Amino acid sequence: MKLLTGKRENKVFIGVLDSTETKVLSVNETDSMVECIAKGEEFLQDVKEKIEAASLEAYFLLDEVTLLSPITKPPKNILCVGKNYVDHAIEMGSKDDIPEHMMVFTKAPTTIIGPNEQIENHLSITNQLDYEGELAIVIGKKGRNIRKEDALDYVFGYTIVNDITARDLQAKHKQFFLGKSLDNSCPMGPFLVHKESLSNPNQLHIETKVNGEVRQSSNTKHFIFSVEEMIVTLSLGMTLEPGDVIATGTPAGVGKGFHPPRFLKPGDQIEITIEGIGTLTNHVSKEI
Amino acid sequence: MKLLTGKRENKVFIGVLDSTETKVLSVNETDSMVECIAKGEEFLQDVKEKIEAASLEAYFLLDEVTLLSPITKPPKNILCVGKNYVDHAIEMGSKDDIPEHMMVFTKAPTTIIGPNEQIENHLSITNQLDYEGELAIVIGKKGRNIRKEDALDYVFGYTIVNDITARDLQAKHKQFFLGKSLDNSCPMGPFLVHKESLSNPNQLHIETKVNGEVRQSSNTKHFIFSVEEMIVTLSLGMTLEPGDVIATGTPAGVGKGFHPPRFLKPGDQIEITIEGIGTLTNHVSKEI
Repeated sequence: MKLLTGKRENKVFIGVLDSTETKVLSVNETDSMVECIAKGEEFLQDVKEKIEAASLEAYFLLDEVTLLSPITKPPKNILCVGKNYVDHAIEMGSKDDIPEHMMVFTKAPTTIIGPNEQIENHLSITNQLDYEGELAIVIGKKGRNIRKEDALDYVFGYTIVNDITARDLQAKHKQFFLGKSLDNSCPMGPFLVHKESLSNPNQLHIETKVNGEVRQSSNTKHFIFSVEEMIVTLSLGMTLEPGDVIATGTPAGVGKGFHPPRFLKPGDQIEITIEGIGTLTNHVSKEI
Repeated sequence: MKLLTGKRENKVFIGVLDSTETKVLSVNETDSMVECIAKGEEFLQDVKEKIEAASLEAYFLLDEVTLLSPITKPPKNILCVGKNYVDHAIEMGSKDDIPEHMMVFTKAPTTIIGPNEQIENHLSITNQLDYEGELAIVIGKKGRNIRKEDALDYVFGYTIVNDITARDLQAKHKQFFLGKSLDNSCPMGPFLVHKESLSNPNQLHIETKVNGEVRQSSNTKHFIFSVEEMIVTLSLGMTLEPGDVIATGTPAGVGKGFHPPRFLKPGDQIEITIEGIGTLTNHVSKEI
C-alpha cells in the first residue's frame, strides 16, 4: 500500500495509489497523515474498505495531483542518524569517522518540502549545499524502550528523504543542527509505503542522481545500525510517537566526498530512488 | 505581565498573574499558549481587556492551580545554544571549549514537563544525570534572516528551563541530541513573562540550587552570544515560528564541573531562579 498526501482542486487529501501507480483514490480529506497514522489499525482498515467499495470512476489520475510531503508536520524534528554507512563515514574524513555509537541530530520541521518543490539555494548563507539520499522510517505507534525483536511493530512505513546539508555551516557550528535546518532542506516523498509492502527495509537498493549522473548507489544492507537497532537506541528513554520520521543516513557519494567537492548549484536536479518506494525528484532554485 | 498554563478542576487554561503573584485570572480556555502567541497583538489586547473587566471575584488563588509548562508543545524541538557562558565552556573541558561560533542542538518536545513535575531518574540508562539552569526565549512572530536591531521585535517573552542532560549519553553519541532528549528532561516555567515586563534579558541574575545549596550563580550579562545574536544566527535561513523556545545556555556550576562530579540522585530537588521571572522547582524521581 502506497499512501500520499496530495492536493487537487485546492484541497489537501490523503490518497492511496492503485496497482498501476497511475491512479489515486482519496481516502481522507479531514486529517493529516500523522493523525491518520495515530488511529492505528482503524485507519488501515478504513483504507482497505474504501478501496473495496470504490468504483473505477472514484479514482483520478496521479498526474492531476500535486504531491506534498507525505508527512507535513511530524511531532518531533526529523530524527537523523549520522554516518550510518561505512563508506560515507570514510569519505567525510577517515576510518576514524566510523561511529562506534549511533550519532543522532535533528532537522527542523520547517525544512520539509514535497516532491518537485524547490530546494532553496541559500546562496547568501552557504556555498557548500550538498545532497544526501536516505531511507526514512515513519513511526506507527507510541513506544519507549522498544526491544529489537519488537522494533518493526512500531514502524508504520517508509519513505525517502533528501537530507540537504550546508557543509560549511555544519562544520562551523560543530553540532549539526544549523547546517541541517535551512528552510526547504528536507524534501520528502513521493509516497509513504506501508511496511507490509516492503519485505525487508534492511535490503533495499538506494540510488541518487544529480542532473542524471549517478552519484550514490548502495543498499540499505550496508547500514552500520539496522532499522531495528535505530529504533532501539532512539527509544531508549525517549518516547517515539506516531508520525515521527527517522532519516537513516546516507551512503558514499555526496558532493563533499569528491575531490574536488561537487556541491549543488542553482538549477541542479536531484533524483533519489529507493527500491519499492519510488523516486523523489527536486531541483535547486535558480534565483541568484 | 506573567502568563501561565494551568490546570484547575480538571480544565487546562491560560492565565495571567495579578500584581501580588498570588492570584490568577483565566484569559483563555480553548487555545494553547502557542496558539495564543500566534494571534499576536490581538491576544495581548484581549488579555488587557479581560484584566480591566474582571471583578476581584473572577480571580482564584494560584495555590489552587496546578502549573503546567507554559509552552506544552512548541512547533520545533527546543532549540538549545550550547556553551554560551565562558566559565561553563571551560568547566566542560578547557579554554579550547569556548565556542568561536554558536553551537545549537535540540531537545525533543517529549522532554517538556511543568514546574513541580518529576524529572525521571532514568537509572537504567544513565548514571550521570545533570542539571543546567537556563533563561529561555519564546518567539512571538514568524521571521527569517532577522537583523540584530530588529531581533527583540520577534520575542514574545521569557521563561526558565532546566536542560537536564545525561552526560554519559551526551559524550557517547557525540552529537548532543540523545543525551539531551530523555523523557521529562526539560522542566519549563513557572511563568512566561512578556518582554515588556523585563527591561533587559541580557542582564538577569540566574541561580540554581540543588537541595538548597547554590550551585550556579551568574548573570545573563555573561552570555557569549546575546539574546539578539542568538536570534540572528538561528533565523539565518531558518524560519522561526511563534512559540519556538530557545534555551540560551547555562553558566558554570553544573554537576560535571565539580571534582569529583556531583551528578543528580533520586529525590534531589533543583530550584532555578531568574530575576524577574520566578523560580522553577522540580525533583528527581525516587523510584529505583
